[in-house]
Amino acid sequence: MKPYRTHTIIILALCAIFAAGPSAYAGDPLPSWNEGPVKKNIIEFVGKVTKEGSPDFVPVSERIATFDSDGTLWSEQPMYFQLFFALDRVKAMAPQHPEWKDKEPFASLLKGEVKGALAGGEKAMIEIVMETHAGMTTAEFEQIVRDWIATAKHPKTGKLFTEMVYQPMLELLAYLRANGFKTFIVSGGGIEFMRPWTEKVYGIPPEQVIGSSISTKFEMRDGKPVLVRLPEINFIDDKAGKPVGINSHIGRRPIAAFGNSDGDLQMLQWTTAGQGPRFALYVHHTDTEREWAYDRNSSIGRLDKGFDEAQAKGWTVVDMKQDWKVIYPHEER
Amino acid sequence: MKPYRTHTIIILALCAIFAAGPSAYAGDPLPSWNEGPVKKNIIEFVGKVTKEGSPDFVPVSERIATFDSDGTLWSEQPMYFQLFFALDRVKAMAPQHPEWKDKEPFASLLKGEVKGALAGGEKAMIEIVMETHAGMTTAEFEQIVRDWIATAKHPKTGKLFTEMVYQPMLELLAYLRANGFKTFIVSGGGIEFMRPWTEKVYGIPPEQVIGSSISTKFEMRDGKPVLVRLPEINFIDDKAGKPVGINSHIGRRPIAAFGNSDGDLQMLQWTTAGQGPRFALYVHHTDTEREWAYDRNSSIGRLDKGFDEAQAKGWTVVDMKQDWKVIYPHEER
Repeated sequence: MKPYRTHTIIILALCAIFAAGPSAYAGDPLPSWNEGPVKKNIIEFVGKVTKEGSPDFVPVSERIATFDSDGTLWSEQPMYFQLFFALDRVKAMAPQHPEWKDKEPFASLLKGEVKGALAGGEKAMIEIVMETHAGMTTAEFEQIVRDWIATAKHPKTGKLFTEMVYQPMLELLAYLRANGFKTFIVSGGGIEFMRPWTEKVYGIPPEQVIGSSISTKFEMRDGKPVLVRLPEINFIDDKAGKPVGINSHIGRRPIAAFGNSDGDLQMLQWTTAGQGPRFALYVHHTDTEREWAYDRNSSIGRLDKGFDEAQAKGWTVVDMKQDWKVIYPHEER
Repeated sequence: MKPYRTHTIIILALCAIFAAGPSAYAGDPLPSWNEGPVKKNIIEFVGKVTKEGSPDFVPVSERIATFDSDGTLWSEQPMYFQLFFALDRVKAMAPQHPEWKDKEPFASLLKGEVKGALAGGEKAMIEIVMETHAGMTTAEFEQIVRDWIATAKHPKTGKLFTEMVYQPMLELLAYLRANGFKTFIVSGGGIEFMRPWTEKVYGIPPEQVIGSSISTKFEMRDGKPVLVRLPEINFIDDKAGKPVGINSHIGRRPIAAFGNSDGDLQMLQWTTAGQGPRFALYVHHTDTEREWAYDRNSSIGRLDKGFDEAQAKGWTVVDMKQDWKVIYPHEER
């Protein structure tokens, strides 16, 4: 063997070691997770599916992990953050809509009576979403979301909404990716509400974000093609819609899925029904002090049937208070 | 500086050189493309968007390239290959459907009169597709496609359909990926008809395949979740549908798009309307000997308006006869 080739092989071998990433030499990949069965389950699962030659080995192309967003990657109380966005939009748009003064649910909203406005139920919600999320081009909507997410603050914490993402989940996303997983968001939230900021905040690019959507229409405006957002529901990515959305966007079954509510149950069922090693995890909100505590009786993020099924099937359940050293990134500083 | 660190830096530098991939040291990345303006345009575009510090530099995350499938990545004559699949399915399913003997378009099909069957136009086509593509689970349909694509042969060439992919386009896909591009299929064909084999044939994984679809429904069968394919159109990924599909699945605008027909025109318009360097290419079928020649008057893969717009806007047009040394991979052997 010529020295040239020997050097090449050594370099390639060293490259392989370095390319294996932090997991190969770093310490704890999940420093914000307390030691215990939950952390152990995660690390054991990742260990076995990445161990070549093991019967549980999964090739990189099949390492698909899907994450719910609201309540799983960031908080969702006292209401879904996208709803704060919609309410801020109603206020911002009110001068162009004098008729809203006398029209529910807008009249209540503009008086600050959110509860009254939402008393109209699903119909009121859809009206608010359509008025605030449709009627502009996709590019215009993206800019509106970017501007809002950069400045809007949560009423209780006073933090930016993107500061209310869960530090332990950020570590989990990074840990999975360092081990060859492709991470996806599969959320009931609006796909175009998430995409402008998920890459920066979660390291998840737009093409790996799946969510609910309204219809869009291609048209030419002044010789320029645009996509116009129409006041018409296209897809609801929740409950039985989640496996449908996963199939439509990913086209293969995840081997790991992460959620926090009954809205994620079908995603976890779909994921765990596949052949070979599977991982399902529920985040249980148990921390009244650092976050919120809610489950079976909450109107937001209800975890009831899913909780029973998790226990029956031995899925991993995070006790937020117990298992997470910190909730938000800023607690670390 | 400690020797340990010096070594580390040298190794990392060498890794960076090796990781730069074939393009950094290989010869011609497009050996099946004849020298000429088309090949030059492609290589110049890739060169400028990948050159750090250049005003045209595009970061890796934004290097999205979308490819039509029928007539762009593989042949589509004398009819779309998915139609051969549908016709074979009609024959295979006929014993379970005695009523087809007297029912159009099935009666004609079963007598081998394809033209007569398709005389029923879109309605007949949709009936054939729904009968053959719906009514089973997604897993069952995937297996049907896998079995068919592994054995079915083209009536004229006697080759497997997957042997009728274009060698120059395989090289182009690989060349783009070696330069940090993420390659997507954006086809009017069925998304679930393509996904079972695109990774093996084109190196494009299921999550990067966008196509037309019928609706699916999540349900439990014997305690196991399945997705059932319904006889109901969900999305037509053609013409003005292509930018909609791109936006829905990718969530950002491609910087390069490749097609061969008027069905791709809106995708090329959408792609080239973005800021910064853009690339649009049409494959023009001009080779009666090695493939087929057709454009403005073809019912399959018509290239008329798109041809005019390509000339007006200076898009790159492949003259298949002139620009491609070989058409199919087997010609190389």
